[in-house]
Amino acid sequence: MESVAVVGGGVIGLSCAWRLAAAGHRVRLIDPAPARGASWVAGGMLAPLTESWPGEEAALDLGAAALERWPSFADELGFELRREGTLVLGVDSADTATLDVLADFLAARGREVDRLTGRAARALEPCLGPRVRSALSVPGDLAVDNRALLAALLRACDAVEFVAEQAVAVRPGRVEFAGHALDADVVVVTAGAHSRGLHPALTGVVRPVKGEILRLRARAGTLPPPSRTVRALVASRPVYLVPRADGELVLGATQHEVGYDTEVTAAGVRDLIADAEQVMPGIGEYALVETAAGLRAGSPDNVPVIGWLEPGVLAATGHHRNGLLLAPTTADAVVALVAGEPEPAATSPSRFAKGVR
Amino acid sequence: MESVAVVGGGVIGLSCAWRLAAAGHRVRLIDPAPARGASWVAGGMLAPLTESWPGEEAALDLGAAALERWPSFADELGFELRREGTLVLGVDSADTATLDVLADFLAARGREVDRLTGRAARALEPCLGPRVRSALSVPGDLAVDNRALLAALLRACDAVEFVAEQAVAVRPGRVEFAGHALDADVVVVTAGAHSRGLHPALTGVVRPVKGEILRLRARAGTLPPPSRTVRALVASRPVYLVPRADGELVLGATQHEVGYDTEVTAAGVRDLIADAEQVMPGIGEYALVETAAGLRAGSPDNVPVIGWLEPGVLAATGHHRNGLLLAPTTADAVVALVAGEPEPAATSPSRFAKGVR
Repeated sequence: MESVAVVGGGVIGLSCAWRLAAAGHRVRLIDPAPARGASWVAGGMLAPLTESWPGEEAALDLGAAALERWPSFADELGFELRREGTLVLGVDSADTATLDVLADFLAARGREVDRLTGRAARALEPCLGPRVRSALSVPGDLAVDNRALLAALLRACDAVEFVAEQAVAVRPGRVEFAGHALDADVVVVTAGAHSRGLHPALTGVVRPVKGEILRLRARAGTLPPPSRTVRALVASRPVYLVPRADGELVLGATQHEVGYDTEVTAAGVRDLIADAEQVMPGIGEYALVETAAGLRAGSPDNVPVIGWLEPGVLAATGHHRNGLLLAPTTADAVVALVAGEPEPAATSPSRFAKGVR
Repeated sequence: MESVAVVGGGVIGLSCAWRLAAAGHRVRLIDPAPARGASWVAGGMLAPLTESWPGEEAALDLGAAALERWPSFADELGFELRREGTLVLGVDSADTATLDVLADFLAARGREVDRLTGRAARALEPCLGPRVRSALSVPGDLAVDNRALLAALLRACDAVEFVAEQAVAVRPGRVEFAGHALDADVVVVTAGAHSRGLHPALTGVVRPVKGEILRLRARAGTLPPPSRTVRALVASRPVYLVPRADGELVLGATQHEVGYDTEVTAAGVRDLIADAEQVMPGIGEYALVETAAGLRAGSPDNVPVIGWLEPGVLAATGHHRNGLLLAPTTADAVVALVAGEPEPAATSPSRFAKGVR
């Protein structure tokens, strides 16, 4: 049994803290506001299949392994997954060509994927509009309500001690705050886009990637939301619509590399609504319940950074768009590393040791 | 000295309560959430000149009298008015023709108004874009920060007793709640769009007119907001941009007659942003800080309803788009009516006594 300090309480930090405590360690989770940040803003797609692309086989394999781990992880949490799958939609002929590439790639990797006409997609989801020209049905993708997931993780962390303070640096055996410090056998950096300020080895590695989402809700007289996750390309721009059990619909997809900026811009909101209306015309009459922005933790190769930064200091960050998806397998990996198991090369921080500024 | 119960704590109710208490009455203000509702959502224009139109001389005269009363009212409150005036902008030739009609009407009534080219308007307000073709400068209009005004009114009401309950009906000498009642010599209904449910004489008179606003804030690298209130016609659709001292910009103009509905719709937000961008292209990069909707109290002739509904029951409602503007003179009128002075015919509820359903 070790004392472990987990620095950062998003979905990665909470998952690591929960599993480390379940493995018998004494765990403290350090975050001035746990269960917020990018995890709170997320869409909730667990969608490695429809996120994949030729040349990104490593990311697909990582994601597919995480997808297989999710049902047992959710069971242990007492948490419901959405299993309706994903529809990927195209509006113009270039979008259709993109869908063909994705379908061929997934089929060649043995994944279930069905090509549909726009008409067949509308038969499945009557809220879709006439501009939808082509679609793929990918039943294997899952989805979660990110906020319900965070609540379940907080409940599962009953053996974890929460420290509501802002860490300013991590060192071997120590987490530093303004004016004092906290000791631990192992420190795990799970602070997402804010990780790079905590340890010098992450400075050139993790960067913030802003994403904006809207939360909408069907109103009296509007068509109900889709039952599946809908991902669309609208003149090559991606947009997603993720339904929630409570009748909400989360709309997202903007990506901006603009530093540590979590303000929602008027143009971001305008574009999200306009693009979503191309595939689901009735969405204009939905109530706009919330706008929010979060910072994903980008990495140079879009693969997360999981491993030792130096003895006593672990990182589990850089999950970019896949923090929710990769949370269960990341937690498993962190538990294994703390137990002394070897570090998988694909996600090791050592791959950036030279040449990355 | 009378005991007066004021039912409804928006800008009209708070102004009436303050002035009634100053006149020596014992005043109770009844509202479960004072200083909210439509007054909280308002843009803050005190703009009877640029709101006027041939045929609506009565409304212009009421508004102009209120505008003259505002400086002393603000002084007594210790409250700052914005005196930069209003620019009215047109984008297409029909908008320009509309501006010409307004300019002729104001000039004929002896009001100061200057016709400007789009170029001259941009010289005054550099944030305006090249699609602005014509403009009127109307220096006489004022503006207020509606939320600062509500805070000042709450402070001024230190001699008023606040009753944080939901009234369900008013009767002579009595305000009724679910299960109990409160006695008063005079009851004043100032509940805006909710007034019609409180007394049968208001049932066919006051109706809710929904308005949506956005609050935006300039960000690093964006052009600063205009210094004047900007009202624009974009392909005949009105939009207004009202600057605040703290760098915020309030954007509004939607009007929907959809009952008691205060949800903001996605299409309403999309249209407000798109229309505002036609006159101020940089607004897309502003932060979207808040979206909100409120219910104005419409009346059949767009003139407020101020007077006796029956002995002991006064109304001061139906102010539609002009609740902030008309608050000082409405409060003066209510104080005069409680003192026994005769009821001005133009705003009397008796004008609807026959023929209005």
